[in-house]
Amino acid sequence: MLNLQPKTVNNLTMMETIQVYVTGGTFDKDYNFITGELYFKDTHLKQMFERGRCTLSIDIKTLMMVDSLEMTDDDRDIIIQNCKRNRSKKIIVTHGTDRMVHTATALAKANIVDKTIILTGAMIPYAFGNSSDGFFNLGAALAFAQTLSPGVYIAMNGRYFKWDNVRKDMKTGFFEELKS
Amino acid sequence: MLNLQPKTVNNLTMMETIQVYVTGGTFDKDYNFITGELYFKDTHLKQMFERGRCTLSIDIKTLMMVDSLEMTDDDRDIIIQNCKRNRSKKIIVTHGTDRMVHTATALAKANIVDKTIILTGAMIPYAFGNSSDGFFNLGAALAFAQTLSPGVYIAMNGRYFKWDNVRKDMKTGFFEELKS
Amino acid sequence: MLNLQPKTVNNLTMMETIQVYVTGGTFDKDYNFITGELYFKDTHLKQMFERGRCTLSIDIKTLMMVDSLEMTDDDRDIIIQNCKRNRSKKIIVTHGTDRMVHTATALAKANIVDKTIILTGAMIPYAFGNSSDGFFNLGAALAFAQTLSPGVYIAMNGRYFKWDNVRKDMKTGFFEELKS
Amino acid sequence: MLNLQPKTVNNLTMMETIQVYVTGGTFDKDYNFITGELYFKDTHLKQMFERGRCTLSIDIKTLMMVDSLEMTDDDRDIIIQNCKRNRSKKIIVTHGTDRMVHTATALAKANIVDKTIILTGAMIPYAFGNSSDGFFNLGAALAFAQTLSPGVYIAMNGRYFKWDNVRKDMKTGFFEELKS
Repeated sequence: MLNLQPKTVNNLTMMETIQVYVTGGTFDKDYNFITGELYFKDTHLKQMFERGRCTLSIDIKTLMMVDSLEMTDDDRDIIIQNCKRNRSKKIIVTHGTDRMVHTATALAKANIVDKTIILTGAMIPYAFGNSSDGFFNLGAALAFAQTLSPGVYIAMNGRYFKWDNVRKDMKTGFFEELKS
Repeated sequence: MLNLQPKTVNNLTMMETIQVYVTGGTFDKDYNFITGELYFKDTHLKQMFERGRCTLSIDIKTLMMVDSLEMTDDDRDIIIQNCKRNRSKKIIVTHGTDRMVHTATALAKANIVDKTIILTGAMIPYAFGNSSDGFFNLGAALAFAQTLSPGVYIAMNGRYFKWDNVRKDMKTGFFEELKS
Repeated sequence: MLNLQPKTVNNLTMMETIQVYVTGGTFDKDYNFITGELYFKDTHLKQMFERGRCTLSIDIKTLMMVDSLEMTDDDRDIIIQNCKRNRSKKIIVTHGTDRMVHTATALAKANIVDKTIILTGAMIPYAFGNSSDGFFNLGAALAFAQTLSPGVYIAMNGRYFKWDNVRKDMKTGFFEELKS
Repeated sequence: MLNLQPKTVNNLTMMETIQVYVTGGTFDKDYNFITGELYFKDTHLKQMFERGRCTLSIDIKTLMMVDSLEMTDDDRDIIIQNCKRNRSKKIIVTHGTDRMVHTATALAKANIVDKTIILTGAMIPYAFGNSSDGFFNLGAALAFAQTLSPGVYIAMNGRYFKWDNVRKDMKTGFFEELKS
């Protein structure tokens, strides 16, 4: 658990821990210089919160490290069960963007009441230095987790989308609201 | 005005523009390789929103480029007048961290009703590559601007603080709530 | 042709132009955020020499943009013919590492006398920010091109290797001299 | 001592160690987020050689961490004495650019025969991510150290300059040969 602000110990008993579940996705991809392919090594989430000088109480747990295109229903069930059992009412799930809406829908239908669940990800891996959107998206997801009312949301492109009013445009990579 | 999502033109008439006022601060410092000193060249805000693949309607205006320690009451008045006159109800002000609380207080006392004003900044310049917190802070500030009720806030360390319940610990660089 | 030092115009007539041939390889790979795969967009060589504040007379020409594993004998012939015809006596070839020795051998056997030809590349793409070795390798290759006697060399791992005394260890990714 | 290539143990007894002396300069500057000023923390040289995947035998020793404008004659004497006493015949000195020629001259006049001494530095700190020239300069300096005949040289802007035929243009920051 990250806690970079030693002086607020008394506050911390009152400060709710935000749960971060890592599932993989572009966000956490690294470059394998032996095979020349992208792969998963370790999550970058801990170092990202440290770099962001985050003083919230954050608990990071890696549930899996997969491309969302390869995520199975069993994988989705693991995410759902963890979100259900967890005490925290504010949850961030890092996730591949291609099936983010799919998992958001599964989470919404699992009837997890009273929790704000934010799915976020990246179009370019965090490890890809100065071009990745991941660090920006994480800051936004963290803010939305603290302020949005209970429900399941996607945080991408600086915005939040309700799970039932969002699609990813596969040609441009942007998320957008459904046409009415 | 940034708008990276061409397909939502019809939506845009309904999408409120978020106003970003640039005032300088560590956030936008660059390295002058002739003098060996940090200085202000241009703001990085536009490229940051692009890198964040932000599809919100954002208007960026540079009001000044100063260290907050050198910000005068006249400078603060310029910020206040711009926030007052602007039609947008969601405003982000990038600002040096040393006097961020000072300007937040001045904005709060200016009685700007019905607007959500978020001050944010960075402890390490955005141009300082892989160590800067600025990109994360901007994502969070943007999310808070969209979700917090009207008022004046500081967004730093992954959190938001009400203007009258925050101080910067000058020794650690972290923002924290006032002791009750 | 790059020339960042305006004052040495008179010198330039005497300063030999160094020819840089781009052939692709890991060096110039970018991330395609639509497909999630690595691909070739444009070479980064020009911006790399600028960032390196290089004041030599450099001519950059892209011959192809391919993985060295997919390089054909025809591709190799294009590289050889260009090295032969070019007036410059100092040539750098950027190249994928997997078949760098192969192309070095082909160049050596083409009997290009009186030219110093340096092949270099990267184990991690330049676009991968703070982890790539490419910028360091380019600096070394440029220095070796200016100082080594005519012949064909590989510049990797901070060293230079003669074309007939080098192999790439495919397990570690390091280049090494042949065991005697 | 760095040695990233475990298999060449037998070779290493024959491979000459290259000595790197760190003296500070822009090269190794970091950003102090408490004071908002640039300062020296630790040298980045070790991580730079690792990132460059250098398999040479390198010994890094920090002699001092100063701006070259503040370097005293005593400091220069420390550099000279270390270069004299050291067994290695290939030495790299990282150094601030403003007085690099000054120290090169002092080294040349100290009559250190049979050693190739390369001074290098950076116009933008290595910690400044994707804009610094430092990593490129280090690659070039390392190559020049291996190939130039004994003498004192400056490696900047992709080139090498003999100590008695170089000046830094303080307006542009480029090094250039003296006008004849």
